[in-house]
Amino acid sequence: MGTVSLLSDEEVSAEALAVFDDIRAVRGTDYVNNFWRALAHDPGLLKATWERLKEVMGPGELDPLVKEMIYIAVSTANGCEYCVHSHTAAARAKGMTTTQHGELLAVIGMAMQTNGLVTGLQVEVDDAFRA
Amino acid sequence: MGTVSLLSDEEVSAEALAVFDDIRAVRGTDYVNNFWRALAHDPGLLKATWERLKEVMGPGELDPLVKEMIYIAVSTANGCEYCVHSHTAAARAKGMTTTQHGELLAVIGMAMQTNGLVTGLQVEVDDAFRA
Amino acid sequence: MGTVSLLSDEEVSAEALAVFDDIRAVRGTDYVNNFWRALAHDPGLLKATWERLKEVMGPGELDPLVKEMIYIAVSTANGCEYCVHSHTAAARAKGMTTTQHGELLAVIGMAMQTNGLVTGLQVEVDDAFRA
Amino acid sequence: MGTVSLLSDEEVSAEALAVFDDIRAVRGTDYVNNFWRALAHDPGLLKATWERLKEVMGPGELDPLVKEMIYIAVSTANGCEYCVHSHTAAARAKGMTTTQHGELLAVIGMAMQTNGLVTGLQVEVDDAFRA
Amino acid sequence: MGTVSLLSDEEVSAEALAVFDDIRAVRGTDYVNNFWRALAHDPGLLKATWERLKEVMGPGELDPLVKEMIYIAVSTANGCEYCVHSHTAAARAKGMTTTQHGELLAVIGMAMQTNGLVTGLQVEVDDAFRA
Amino acid sequence: MGTVSLLSDEEVSAEALAVFDDIRAVRGTDYVNNFWRALAHDPGLLKATWERLKEVMGPGELDPLVKEMIYIAVSTANGCEYCVHSHTAAARAKGMTTTQHGELLAVIGMAMQTNGLVTGLQVEVDDAFRA
Repeated sequence: MGTVSLLSDEEVSAEALAVFDDIRAVRGTDYVNNFWRALAHDPGLLKATWERLKEVMGPGELDPLVKEMIYIAVSTANGCEYCVHSHTAAARAKGMTTTQHGELLAVIGMAMQTNGLVTGLQVEVDDAFRA
Repeated sequence: MGTVSLLSDEEVSAEALAVFDDIRAVRGTDYVNNFWRALAHDPGLLKATWERLKEVMGPGELDPLVKEMIYIAVSTANGCEYCVHSHTAAARAKGMTTTQHGELLAVIGMAMQTNGLVTGLQVEVDDAFRA
Repeated sequence: MGTVSLLSDEEVSAEALAVFDDIRAVRGTDYVNNFWRALAHDPGLLKATWERLKEVMGPGELDPLVKEMIYIAVSTANGCEYCVHSHTAAARAKGMTTTQHGELLAVIGMAMQTNGLVTGLQVEVDDAFRA
Repeated sequence: MGTVSLLSDEEVSAEALAVFDDIRAVRGTDYVNNFWRALAHDPGLLKATWERLKEVMGPGELDPLVKEMIYIAVSTANGCEYCVHSHTAAARAKGMTTTQHGELLAVIGMAMQTNGLVTGLQVEVDDAFRA
Repeated sequence: MGTVSLLSDEEVSAEALAVFDDIRAVRGTDYVNNFWRALAHDPGLLKATWERLKEVMGPGELDPLVKEMIYIAVSTANGCEYCVHSHTAAARAKGMTTTQHGELLAVIGMAMQTNGLVTGLQVEVDDAFRA
Repeated sequence: MGTVSLLSDEEVSAEALAVFDDIRAVRGTDYVNNFWRALAHDPGLLKATWERLKEVMGPGELDPLVKEMIYIAVSTANGCEYCVHSHTAAARAKGMTTTQHGELLAVIGMAMQTNGLVTGLQVEVDDAFRA
């Protein structure tokens, strides 16, 4: 178990339940995943996080699947097990193919590798790169 | 300056110069950026890194611009100043708009935030997310 | 299991057992948690770590509960599962309320988010902030 | 310079200027620091970040100074230079003493150290710590 | 389970099986560990990773055991559970003693600690250290 | 400048000056680098850090140069600019060759890369690796 319990619909406040209901409506499923059930101990934090996530991950110039892959990249670099699992599942639900997953991982691995080389060498930023 | 000097064309080995020449040919520019000039102290490492980068970042199912944005996401999470600069410049050269840059940053910020919340809560992975 | 076994009182050296006894005396409990039992493979490292922890986390200008919350913040950013669990338990034992836990997580999430935005933007430090 | 330019009051949109004005009013100063001037390239992201920061860092059960120290802890673990500078300045403005700063750093250093030891040993979480 | 399944010899492509066979030959064992079985979903990524690993970790000026300890250090700082486990096992197989393991952990802990102190203090690099 | 000033010999307390003198004696040089001058604002933290560093990095089963390379590996993964610079200089002073530096960087890059792949795949730890 985590550092807090996972709250059932019966255990959460009215404010948290309203967030759960919106998650269900937006996603078209009855399932509310563990992250939200843990976060529901603080209904204000739950609501603010969900409202922001909905806006950031929604339609824009970037494709929703691209946004999920960017999310996976950050979560992988930060070593967040839950986040890697949940957003890989989300990316698959949005159509990520096995080949695309492999390419995503290859880019992550390449970036990690050169991040290490650059930091070990303490390479100075080229003037050409600055805004 | 970095932990090593930046080598000029005159200072590098023949093996390293051949890599510089390939970088110039592939990118269609005479400019070889600082990373490669620092890495040239170890020609084998230079060559292996460039060959792999060329393959990973080249054409595939994912768009080259998407690959650059994934690279930026990893580099940001790892706090690699040089990498953020060089790949933001590369993404712009491949057509990233100001709006897309803003969306990229918003997703990175969102992922960082929930990475922190999930880790602080130690949320268990839902069975539904596992392969 | 971990990369080393957890040593029982019967398996540790006399030097390590003396540290276990001090942990018990300081904390007023017979329970010695897994971290110390794993670290006991190197009695010198065990002793140095415990002696320093005792001093750093003890009375000072900062409240012991505040110190635990700072510890949780660092451990969360570093993704250390064990550390998040053990110091959240310690913070609760020192009186952390559910509301305080929620505020702690909200600050961690906010900091993670702006860390990402600042790094992605490579914002220059204002002269006003430097010592 | 960063990956984007710092926008002056004259260069930003009306929506961004309204955020700048609120920052000035809340903080009681004319100075708007670089982070907001970089973020102003995306007025929506600027506004969402400021609104959330204002709420999270405002009055609660935790003291505003404690919140700043938690922010410093996260930013230090993530290696965010700008964030460490800006929030150390903010903590000083809220009364952090030299002794408190020293204790904060000592706890950060201790947490970093044991994060490393625990991860290297892969210590299993004690049942007693789980919620 | 992970974000992908672990592929058996019967499930992988001919290209992936050839890599498995080379792993077996080089290591002198029939056992192919989970990392490679997960990576086999993308045979090209599997092959490139294995070929490079074989070269990097092979004979050189640095002792193979020293290379494993450097690998453990990076993996610990990055919080990679699997990597810490697999390379600690590899280091033991190459002769790492309990005392050496303790010294390795002590150096990792010391580095983590001073990384935190230096970053919190934002210490300027001495001119004497630059190349 | 950093978040604190660098203290000269004339500005530090007697306790801090005694640490400076020991640094000079142990290293056989008059030069006291910036880290210690920043840390001297908290003489107790300065003393504890130096005493521990002296012990951890001193003679043992691991070669002092190997210890410096492990230190560089951790500092690189954590993105600590100052630490990478100071310990690369220290490694050179202890005899690290250009070839060894290249091999160190290659191992760091390899580890970073596979850390990313393993975390993205969420590979389960093989039973064979556990203690």
